[in-house]
Amino acid sequence: MNETSKIAILGGTGPQGKGLALRFAIAGVPVVIGSRDSERAAEVAVELSAALPEGSATIEGIENLAAATAADEMIILSVPYSAHDATLADLKHLLSGKILIDIVVPLAPKNPKAVVMPPEGSATEAAQALLGDDIAVVGALHNVSAVTLNNIEQPINCDVLVCGNQLDAKKSVMTLIEKLGVKAYNAGLAESARCIEALTPILIRLNISKEVPFTHAGVTIAPPAH
Amino acid sequence: MNETSKIAILGGTGPQGKGLALRFAIAGVPVVIGSRDSERAAEVAVELSAALPEGSATIEGIENLAAATAADEMIILSVPYSAHDATLADLKHLLSGKILIDIVVPLAPKNPKAVVMPPEGSATEAAQALLGDDIAVVGALHNVSAVTLNNIEQPINCDVLVCGNQLDAKKSVMTLIEKLGVKAYNAGLAESARCIEALTPILIRLNISKEVPFTHAGVTIAPPAH
Repeated sequence: MNETSKIAILGGTGPQGKGLALRFAIAGVPVVIGSRDSERAAEVAVELSAALPEGSATIEGIENLAAATAADEMIILSVPYSAHDATLADLKHLLSGKILIDIVVPLAPKNPKAVVMPPEGSATEAAQALLGDDIAVVGALHNVSAVTLNNIEQPINCDVLVCGNQLDAKKSVMTLIEKLGVKAYNAGLAESARCIEALTPILIRLNISKEVPFTHAGVTIAPPAH
Repeated sequence: MNETSKIAILGGTGPQGKGLALRFAIAGVPVVIGSRDSERAAEVAVELSAALPEGSATIEGIENLAAATAADEMIILSVPYSAHDATLADLKHLLSGKILIDIVVPLAPKNPKAVVMPPEGSATEAAQALLGDDIAVVGALHNVSAVTLNNIEQPINCDVLVCGNQLDAKKSVMTLIEKLGVKAYNAGLAESARCIEALTPILIRLNISKEVPFTHAGVTIAPPAH
């Protein structure tokens, strides 16, 4: 992927998608956000573009499948879990040669403090099973809160755990993510998503419970003290 | 639990158990380490005691069941996963009114970069199912490396995620753990152990792969930047 390859963010009109669109555009990565509703996507793109500092890359907004087609290589899936499988089934024929970055967490319906994992083990593994082994699926960005992403005045103060069964795709995604100024770690095969996705409700729980002296916690990989 | 309540560490002659014994004794908590082999336990207790700075609490070593009996309230289970269920079955009749702190990670046989979760979902949930609801099981301390624990010259530079179905027991364990100078977080019900236990092989993987500029990584809950 060259410096100006365009990425798509499907479900890009939700809080997580909007925050990622802003962060990537600021980092110089052109973004096309997708939505089931192309008008809504276009409106949000205008709104986000107005918030971008000078020198940022562009944000466009179109319908989900058109957005996937417009992406040069990487497509971020940021839809609610209830739409995860159906969106992938619609997209599958467009994904040949591209990388699907799955950031979806299978939160329990009406309970963001719990996950209900799919039979495949995790959303990332379900996506890989649905798309087949010829399309690279990489799980990432599950643990960064939407509030943190949208607070563009501040750096993103957590690390990103990246997993998937294809090493080259994983490395490309780690390079993309590190443009956001965070450290991305190779957290192993797709099955690691069982843990990484399930960290999100634990973080949400800490934020809701006010047991932490801050909100919108993330995780970092901690070195030993020296 | 008062300041000087004695804790037991079963499987206390392994690297993790030894490191915890040192850290708790240094923090002023008397420790009795247990092993299947009482002579081995006594030898290790002598070895560890020699490493303690002046003013530390004592470390004794006896057989596992005797150690569980000697504990005032809290018993840390630190055996290899292969001995997890059998040790608990042996202990069950001694645990009434006590708290079982399960730190065991169900690592895959011959592959510390993967877990094989039990049918109950996690080792902590398996322990709770085996002991019944009248005995409090708390999952904790899964993600602190043995090397970090045994390097007693240095502070433990990571956080501890604590989970379990009984809130009072969980709070007692958090208070105990914070004596080690770390922050303990209430990570929710026992089912959170599915995630917390599975974090360990991800950390082991990062350490083995040298993808991190340090070894023996832990995790911390990161606040947003200010």
